[in-house]
This record gives sequence, C-alpha cells and structure tokens, in this order.
Amino acid sequence: MPVKSISIPNGFKVGGVRSGIHKKEGKKDLALFISETPADTAAMFTQSATKAAPVILDIEILKKNKKISAVIANSGCANACTGKKGLQDAKAMCEITEKYFNLPKKSVLCASTGVIGQYIKMPKLKTGMELLKNAIGISSKNEQEAIAAVMTTDTFAKIASKKIKVGVNGAKGEIKIWGCVKGAGMIHPNLKGLHATMLSFILTDAEIDSKNLQKLLENAAEKSFNCVSVDGDTSTNDTLILMANGQSKTGRLSSADMKKFAEALNEVCLSLAKQMAKDGEGATKLIEIEVRNAKNVSDAKAIAATIATSPLFKTAIFGADANWGRVMAAAGRAGVNFDPMKTDVYFGGVLTCKNGMALNFSESKAKKALLKKEVKIVVDLKSGKAASKYYTCDFSYDYVKINGDYRS
Amino acid sequence: MPVKSISIPNGFKVGGVRSGIHKKEGKKDLALFISETPADTAAMFTQSATKAAPVILDIEILKKNKKISAVIANSGCANACTGKKGLQDAKAMCEITEKYFNLPKKSVLCASTGVIGQYIKMPKLKTGMELLKNAIGISSKNEQEAIAAVMTTDTFAKIASKKIKVGVNGAKGEIKIWGCVKGAGMIHPNLKGLHATMLSFILTDAEIDSKNLQKLLENAAEKSFNCVSVDGDTSTNDTLILMANGQSKTGRLSSADMKKFAEALNEVCLSLAKQMAKDGEGATKLIEIEVRNAKNVSDAKAIAATIATSPLFKTAIFGADANWGRVMAAAGRAGVNFDPMKTDVYFGGVLTCKNGMALNFSESKAKKALLKKEVKIVVDLKSGKAASKYYTCDFSYDYVKINGDYRS
Repeated sequence: MPVKSISIPNGFKVGGVRSGIHKKEGKKDLALFISETPADTAAMFTQSATKAAPVILDIEILKKNKKISAVIANSGCANACTGKKGLQDAKAMCEITEKYFNLPKKSVLCASTGVIGQYIKMPKLKTGMELLKNAIGISSKNEQEAIAAVMTTDTFAKIASKKIKVGVNGAKGEIKIWGCVKGAGMIHPNLKGLHATMLSFILTDAEIDSKNLQKLLENAAEKSFNCVSVDGDTSTNDTLILMANGQSKTGRLSSADMKKFAEALNEVCLSLAKQMAKDGEGATKLIEIEVRNAKNVSDAKAIAATIATSPLFKTAIFGADANWGRVMAAAGRAGVNFDPMKTDVYFGGVLTCKNGMALNFSESKAKKALLKKEVKIVVDLKSGKAASKYYTCDFSYDYVKINGDYRS
Repeated sequence: MPVKSISIPNGFKVGGVRSGIHKKEGKKDLALFISETPADTAAMFTQSATKAAPVILDIEILKKNKKISAVIANSGCANACTGKKGLQDAKAMCEITEKYFNLPKKSVLCASTGVIGQYIKMPKLKTGMELLKNAIGISSKNEQEAIAAVMTTDTFAKIASKKIKVGVNGAKGEIKIWGCVKGAGMIHPNLKGLHATMLSFILTDAEIDSKNLQKLLENAAEKSFNCVSVDGDTSTNDTLILMANGQSKTGRLSSADMKKFAEALNEVCLSLAKQMAKDGEGATKLIEIEVRNAKNVSDAKAIAATIATSPLFKTAIFGADANWGRVMAAAGRAGVNFDPMKTDVYFGGVLTCKNGMALNFSESKAKKALLKKEVKIVVDLKSGKAASKYYTCDFSYDYVKINGDYRS
C-alpha cells in the first residue's frame, strides 16, 4: 500500500497519468489537483502579450469565481497560439474535469506546457480522465505522479512543503502548505510580473479568503519566482495558483498566525524558485546573486537581474572563471545610476574587485568556490542600505543542445 | 611594394603593429588612425554606468575640442575598472601619440578592448609607438594591419567603404568614406544608445563640421549599430568615431550632396553592423529580423530586439528549427501592446504562423532556408505601417566554448 504523503494538506487529492497528449511514449502528461470542497484561490499569470489559451481562460474564470475545486494541467502541448479552437479546447478541458469529478460549473482552472502552436489532442484527454479517476489520492506516489505529469525538460521533481502550528502554543492545530513547480527553460517569470513556462500549484488547508490570499501570493512571488531567470525568456503559459480550502479546521487566522503563514508561504515559494533555477536547462550550478547596499530595492533588483541574464556572465560561471569584469559590465548596463568606483565584487566569498578595480586575489580559491554546485556572487555598491537577491544557473553546452533540438 | 588602398580617404594614414600589450604571442595589438590635418569629429560611446577609462577620457577631450588628429587603439586590455591609474594610462596613451607623431595637444582620442580590470602595460606602448612610425600608410596592407590590431575574438576583418561623386554631374570631385569595426562578443551596442565591445572607426575626406557630423552619425547608428545584438551584453568600452578631414578638397556640401553622403554613411555603418552580427562569437548564421506593419517604429524595434536577444530563439536557429512559437513568445514579452491573433511569422520566406496560429507549412522548405548562412525572419503585425530591422546571429556550442574560457 502506498505511503500516505505527510505533506499534502487536508482535503486535497492529487494525481498524474499518461493520456497520450505528450508525444513521448510512456511520459506522464496529465495532472489533477483537486480539493474536496471549493477552495479560496489566488493566482498570477504571465504578463506576455502572447498569452496561451489556458491563461486567458483562467483569468476569465477567476474574474467571476474565486472558489476553485480543481486544476487540470497537461504537458506536451502549450495550447498557445491556437486561436479560437485553442480557447474552446481549454474550456472543454475544464468542463470534462467538472463532469468526470462531479464539480461545480466554472470551478476548474487549467494549465498547459509544451510546444507552442499545436492543438491538444482532445480524445486523449478523455482517456486521461478515466485514468485519473483511479490515480488521484493523497499518497507520496500520487504526489510524484502529479508532478511528473507536468514536467517537460525538468530533470527532477520540485516540491516544497511546510507545516505551521496555529493558535497560542499551537492550540488551534496545524496548517499544511504544499507546492510543486515545473519549469526549466523559458524561465524568467513575470507574473504581474512572473517570467517563464513555469507552472506552480500550491495547496494549503488554511482558511484564508481569496483577497488576502492574493496579497500573500504576490508578496511571496516578488521575492521568489520573480527573482529567477534561466534564460530571460518569459513564457506564454506561466501560471501560479494557490488554493486554500480551510480543511485544517483551524478557523480564521489571528494576525500573528497570518504572519507565520506568510513566512511559511514565502519559504515554500523561495524553495521552489531556487529548485527551478538549479534545474535550469543544461545547468550545472545554481547561482545566487546578491546586490547589497544599494540606494533602493528596485536598483538592487535591476542590477541583480541584469547580471543573472547576462550570457557572458553565465558562460564564465560554467567555465568556473572568476571573471568579475563581466559582472561589472552587466551591472553597468542595468540602467541604474551607481558608482562603479565604489563597487566591490565577491565570487564565492572571495573579494575579486574592490572599489571597481582589480585585486590580486587568489584565483585558485575563487576557482574552488566556482566549481561547487551552488555559487554565490555578491555585488556591494556601498551606497545605501537596500538589497536584493536573484537566482539563476550557468549557461552550458547542454543548454544549446536541449534548445537547438527541442521541437523536433 | 604594397598596393595602395583604393578606399582610404585622402589625408589619412592607418596602421597596426604588435607591441606586446596583448598576451598572445605575435598578435597585433596597437592600431593608429591618423589624419594629416585635424579632422572634424563626431563620436558615440557606451551608455554603460561602468565606462572604461578611454571612454571617460574621450568624452572629456571632445567636450573641449572636436578637431581630432588621430585615434590610438589597442586590443588585449580594456582598461576598464582600472580607477585613477587607468585614466592616467589612457591620458598617457594619447600624449605619447601626440609626441611621437608631432600632433597638437589634446587632439588624440584612444580606445581599448580586451580583458576588464587589468592595466595597460605602458612600457610596451612605447615599443609599439616606435613600430607604428614605420607601419602607418595608405596601402591595403596598412589597412589590414590596423584592423587586425583591434580584433579580439573576431574571425574576419570587417571593413566597408563607399565613394560618392559630388557637385552637378560629379563636377566637384569625389568623397571617400571608409570604416572598420571590431566586435564579436559583448555586442549589443547602446551608443546613446550603442550596446557592445564594438570599436568602430570611420574616416572620410568630406568637409563637414562636427555638429552636422554628429547628427549624421547618430542617425546612421540608430539603424545599424543600434540594431545589432550578439549576446545582449553592452560593453564598457563601446566606441564609434567618425573623422572628416576635408582633404577631398570638394568644399562644403550642397544639401543634395549632404543627402548622398548621409546615405553612403548609412550604408557603410549598416554593412559594418551586419558583418559584426555575422561574426558574432560562435555564430554559424547571420539572422535578420524584420518586424513589419507595427503601429510605430519603437514598437517594431522593441519586438525585433527582444526576438534577437532570446536565447531560445537563437538556439532554435542554430538547430535550423522553424520554431515560430519562440518568436511569438519573445514578441509577447517585448512590452509592446499588439494583437497576437493578427500576427504572421515567416522563416526564410516560409509562412509558418498566420493570425497567431499554426499553419501546415512545409518543414523541409523551412529547414532548407534555415540551413543557409543568412536567415531572414519576418514578423507581420498587420496593425500599422511602421517597420524595423534587427541583426543578430545564432547561439551555438562555440559561444559557450569561447566564453566559458575567455579570460584564462
């Protein structure tokens, strides 16, 4: 008998199956995240002008109804650039789910990831639905299958979860937050603003109304998903959905507990975002870029983001080369007014550039730091008190290989 | 005896030598472009906040004097992030040139390209000066040597020249324009705004005052150097200098001749820009992206630039994959309000996407077009009359190879 997942929140079931939508033999391609009772829901979507059909549809549904019962998601086809038929297909995808699982009308959201410009094979979807009926549940196996079904070029399953005790000394019980994310390429989430095809589904059994939930989600995304870039390409399909079904039975949260919840949600989102950067297409390393002592946060973030998306910087890190000049060059073109003559740059703790000038640093120490799986770059502007972090990965031969031959 | 260059304008001499500034044995690394009489000069520089010492110095010199006698340029060291000493070195570089060639004070500009954060080896510079005395001239050999001395990862010399007849039926004689450019990586010129390390020196024997010259240069750059990207990385050293010494002896230009000159200058700049994209680091193809029928030019340019800098698009072209979905995705994140449902996309003349949707196009025809050395992508927005072109190259394994191991 499968082990019950210790992390899936009360009242949710998840699952993933092989329907045949994805062209790769045997690949799981259809996932369902379902709440036994309609859940208050918050969501963020790509800001791209070229929005995929599921994104257009979800935005429309959420305008009228924020009590959501389920999210159905597929891999293998993005259902983007598919015109009216694409929109009809997305609608049918939700309606079929409602029918098969006996859910209220307009209470299902959908999400897709995969090749742009192809239609979803609708007959396969029905096959998938039948299979999902038996495949959903609350075990670790169901959890792994659900995530596997939305993965594309991802090389590992990305999950994060947290539990928090609520009430004085935990008197009111426990709340669970569970999230997964899919995304390895076209990652530069900009959900008002995320940039990627990232699909992330976060479930919690806390009782929080959708308005507050939306605020919490936007705050969490700002410091996590919106601080990740694999290749600077924002996707047509980026979707982040947070469902809260109240099934922890802990009631409305006190402001102290709300704060705890916000922190836990931030942690879950940050963990997912970092896992996504680590699993960037072709990545050999996770890179954390911290810009410190800037005049304000937006300056710090702009510089960190520009470094994180510089191909010259990312190829240097792939080569474990402490080429701090490329960091200074990227910072320079970030559109921020700062003083290069005051700027210090650290590679993995090694000070390589002081006051904008070369230092006689230990190349071997820097090289050793850069050969690790996680690399930290710090840019200290020494001009204020604001800071920002950004997460990315290195740029390798495999990135080119994966993307020079993805569609075919 | 070397063949006289048919293209170097009257009254200019050029040359390039090996001084030893560049660490690679035998590599030419010091170039001189000199006018026998001080020339009216226009220039554009990187907009980076991290400006290299030669850029800071040139801007300062040109504030006081627009009659320039020479440009001295080196490869192998960018003289960027070098603080006060770097600025002193740049000044010394100009002053030594003035002394050795007996030129007026503050009439020499300088430019550098190479590794950031290292000082120029000044004793080598003096050796170079001695050699330059004999190496400058007006032959094709001098021309090739001058260009070779500013090249870094460039794989071929990039030159363009034009001649125009002035006066009614050419009665006033002939004007020459000659230009060269260096640049293969960190190319995304933004000279107010160019983005790259591109160094470009353009010489003409036309008689045009520096104020008009500046306007002509800015117009020409807007449609050429500012429409090129190799990797989206703007350099600390980008420099574009245009010198006009009047030695054609054709006098002030009539407005008709001025127009002819502007066209010729545009052609020279565009040719140089395209050569630079073609020689992008690791490039196997030149890609021209045209965005048509936009509401306005800035929309068209923003979309073209976003496509040109998308790693996903550029790796697809490397793989000769007509992945128009990535074009639509990149267009979508350009920050422009357009209607994807009206947009058509052509790959090498093959319509791959009509009204934002997939077409059943001939993959083999598209593949054939994408396997050529020059590839044209057209995005037709069908929403207005404005258009813009952008030039870039594909993203290959060699880009990663070159940049994962450049500094060491």
